[in-house]
Amino acid sequence: MTIDKISQIKASIKSIPDYPKPGILFRDVTSLMEDAAAYKATIEMLVDKYKDQGFTKIVGTEARGFLFGAPLALELDLGFVPVRKPGKLPRETVAQSYELEYGTDTLEIHTDAISEGDKVLMVDDLLATGGTIEATTKLIRQLGGEVSHAAFVINLPEIGGDKRLEALGIEVYSLCEFEGH
Amino acid sequence: MTIDKISQIKASIKSIPDYPKPGILFRDVTSLMEDAAAYKATIEMLVDKYKDQGFTKIVGTEARGFLFGAPLALELDLGFVPVRKPGKLPRETVAQSYELEYGTDTLEIHTDAISEGDKVLMVDDLLATGGTIEATTKLIRQLGGEVSHAAFVINLPEIGGDKRLEALGIEVYSLCEFEGH
Repeated sequence: MTIDKISQIKASIKSIPDYPKPGILFRDVTSLMEDAAAYKATIEMLVDKYKDQGFTKIVGTEARGFLFGAPLALELDLGFVPVRKPGKLPRETVAQSYELEYGTDTLEIHTDAISEGDKVLMVDDLLATGGTIEATTKLIRQLGGEVSHAAFVINLPEIGGDKRLEALGIEVYSLCEFEGH
Repeated sequence: MTIDKISQIKASIKSIPDYPKPGILFRDVTSLMEDAAAYKATIEMLVDKYKDQGFTKIVGTEARGFLFGAPLALELDLGFVPVRKPGKLPRETVAQSYELEYGTDTLEIHTDAISEGDKVLMVDDLLATGGTIEATTKLIRQLGGEVSHAAFVINLPEIGGDKRLEALGIEVYSLCEFEGH
């Protein structure tokens, strides 16, 4: 049953050559979400993995992390906390910069969204370098939250983001893996 | 029961003065999503309204539309189609520009995400001017989809977006209304 679901999920993900730039084979979760059965199987697998584990909040990163983190939060009866690009959150925030291939980017979280002792699960669509989830980990810990788990629909293990996150004490789980960058 | 849910939803929405600029009282759905019970009540109300109506796709606009449209699609066993800012969707797209207070912006949808005869429900967090949903309506119709319904968590009726969308043949539904701009 689980193997069936993984096959269904993996088959629904289209691969787009040379996007967003030449040489990159982009793994596209929008085709997964357009497939109602595959999208439902994805959320069911995440629910099975993370139910009854004592989490108190789900954090998802803008924008594709919202598409998996928010439904999971609803199924687990947990609040959903968005991590967004600068200037997008209206209340008081803390910010964390992270390195891109060229330059840096910044993520923000509402200061009052995470409390001391919250046990947080991070959710995103795809793990590549792990830069956004490393920054998200730092934001959650800065606010006193405990975070040691991150869930992804897709992992690209050749890029090594899983090793980078494990070095921060984050246990990485993904529903499927693809070769390449 | 419904009145209880609406009160709960409305009470969970924080109002932020002078965001994103002086004079604007911003209605913040992130505080709704952080409240697990209010978030669940929101999706339940949308499910009750739109189940068994023959819709074939849910379309949500980046980024907050994802947070309500995607869970609704999952509950209704429908595919979810994102409408995004330029350059964010990897496959072939069609684009539609719309006017902002100063200048214009553009939205895109995957060309293959909507088929002739699809019956589409649009979902977003907040109805103000209606500009993004007018552009989304045009994108869906350009691809042959039928669209005559849009659902919002919040409507700001004084701005008049509901009238603008009704003039396009869109029936507007919102879970709650707030005064002001």
